[in-house]
Amino acid sequence: MSLDVQILTALRAASDVAVSGAELSQKLRVSRAAIWARVEELRSLGYDIEASPHKGYRLLSTPDVLHADDLISRLGKTKVVGRDIRVFQETTSTNDVIDKLARDGVKEGVVVFADSQTRGRGRLGRKWMSPARRGLWFSILLRPDLRPQEVTRLTVASATALRRAIESQTGLKPEIKWPNDILVYGKKVAGILMELSAELDQIKYVVLGIGVDVNLNPGDFPAELRKIATSLKAELDRPISRPDLAVAILRELDSDYARISAGQFPALADEWAKHGTTIGRDVVIRMGNRQVRGRAESLGEDGELLVRTEHGHLERIVGGDVTLEK
Amino acid sequence: MSLDVQILTALRAASDVAVSGAELSQKLRVSRAAIWARVEELRSLGYDIEASPHKGYRLLSTPDVLHADDLISRLGKTKVVGRDIRVFQETTSTNDVIDKLARDGVKEGVVVFADSQTRGRGRLGRKWMSPARRGLWFSILLRPDLRPQEVTRLTVASATALRRAIESQTGLKPEIKWPNDILVYGKKVAGILMELSAELDQIKYVVLGIGVDVNLNPGDFPAELRKIATSLKAELDRPISRPDLAVAILRELDSDYARISAGQFPALADEWAKHGTTIGRDVVIRMGNRQVRGRAESLGEDGELLVRTEHGHLERIVGGDVTLEK
Repeated sequence: MSLDVQILTALRAASDVAVSGAELSQKLRVSRAAIWARVEELRSLGYDIEASPHKGYRLLSTPDVLHADDLISRLGKTKVVGRDIRVFQETTSTNDVIDKLARDGVKEGVVVFADSQTRGRGRLGRKWMSPARRGLWFSILLRPDLRPQEVTRLTVASATALRRAIESQTGLKPEIKWPNDILVYGKKVAGILMELSAELDQIKYVVLGIGVDVNLNPGDFPAELRKIATSLKAELDRPISRPDLAVAILRELDSDYARISAGQFPALADEWAKHGTTIGRDVVIRMGNRQVRGRAESLGEDGELLVRTEHGHLERIVGGDVTLEK
Repeated sequence: MSLDVQILTALRAASDVAVSGAELSQKLRVSRAAIWARVEELRSLGYDIEASPHKGYRLLSTPDVLHADDLISRLGKTKVVGRDIRVFQETTSTNDVIDKLARDGVKEGVVVFADSQTRGRGRLGRKWMSPARRGLWFSILLRPDLRPQEVTRLTVASATALRRAIESQTGLKPEIKWPNDILVYGKKVAGILMELSAELDQIKYVVLGIGVDVNLNPGDFPAELRKIATSLKAELDRPISRPDLAVAILRELDSDYARISAGQFPALADEWAKHGTTIGRDVVIRMGNRQVRGRAESLGEDGELLVRTEHGHLERIVGGDVTLEK
């Protein structure tokens, strides 16, 4: 842990009480001058640290920046997700970065954030707008012990975790639209792009990409998206702390990843269905040039959507584009 | 087309009749001296070309070498497979080479052969022995319009094509063992390793790797493999031409790939079943730490194996390790 993070951790632990330079110096085994130098550096990054000659240091607020060490420290001990966190100012796509790490044999759990992406992408090769510091654009490397056919379970787990974290940080009641969009008041605020490398019956790795429109202004969206996409800030009329939300999401993802690894997928599927917009609804699902129309009945055991067609046949749907009929 | 290949093509077209240097010179628009120089070069590669001062040139035999231009020329026009062929003397694994090409956006159909692989691999991370010039070790880049769940169709298509090509070149009656081994008299002579890169509902690309034990001697196999693996040469007691077999396999693969692209999977599945060792048999299938026991009934529409378990339940099997019970 870097000295910066040790200082921040100590100040956070003290909450509203100031911590003296002498105390920090003794605890962290560095000189008071070194503490002062790091505090100055943290202030330059936007950390609002009050320094009073008599009482010591107090952390008043954390800036809206993604600081890898600080995120790791705040996340604390997780099973898998966030064991390593890296933050890029700009990259083509965080999925590309994770993909390279995967090929280099890096262990699962590493997370890559980018303040902005020059070629962010959504599902099926669509563009994903990722303006600098307005959202959370990140990807996670996973090596699940699942067969490729079961990978939809991971989509379901990611969506439930993402929904839960957004709810806890904002008080909003987000809904999940099949397969992996998160909606607030019917508009998309977050999406998941899962890419996998596999053999016929073995997953080599999964790149789980997540984009959350946190503090975008309505004007940041192109006109054609304004009816279907929104941001947390736009819905709440106040900005949301990106690092707070990032930590909450990673924590929930770690917890839900552990749940599917432990064979608790059915419970997750129930949670998904409870907060989904899709189950029990008449839907039209487009998959390439194929289309299925029917009623979404439930999730199957691999995480696929089970749709009862007009002819009474039960179709197993993986992916696709869903339109709700009523 | 290189001058070498134009010369070889002209000599092959003439079959047993000699072609004069003057005729070649006129047809290929180069000097007789240039023709002579290339013939000398081809001879040094092992092409047995008779040169008679009065009659001209005659191709007596083709060496057992993989010559990219010559393979392309002999393959002739195909729909997809073999539009581009590259031959490496040695590589880690031809699947790795194709994977890199796929990431660079190369079009489907490119084939990479290697005379030897230093890290050849089989399914599930197993080692695949690939001694120099004793077999065919190659991979093909495909970008099928299939959902990841349908990719088993490609395994079935590859196995039928491979089986048919081996039969046509050797007269042997190879059998297919689920999911993608080719057996002769119960021993493995060829295998398929399919690796895919995909989103939830869209395949980005498939790397189809094929290994055929063509001219290995029994002594080339480690002792522990001799009971379960063999080569075409060992079974026939004579060597088989690797380039002839390579051309035959690529042609059959192109044809079967076109069949699944045209929605003719059911016919392929019938052919697979007819030459399979698996359908109608009692099987035990191990998939990771799971095991299914039952009777293999048929192939499903995505190419999966349908197994009726002891409890009467129909299981859809993708991959796995099969043991035939009787």
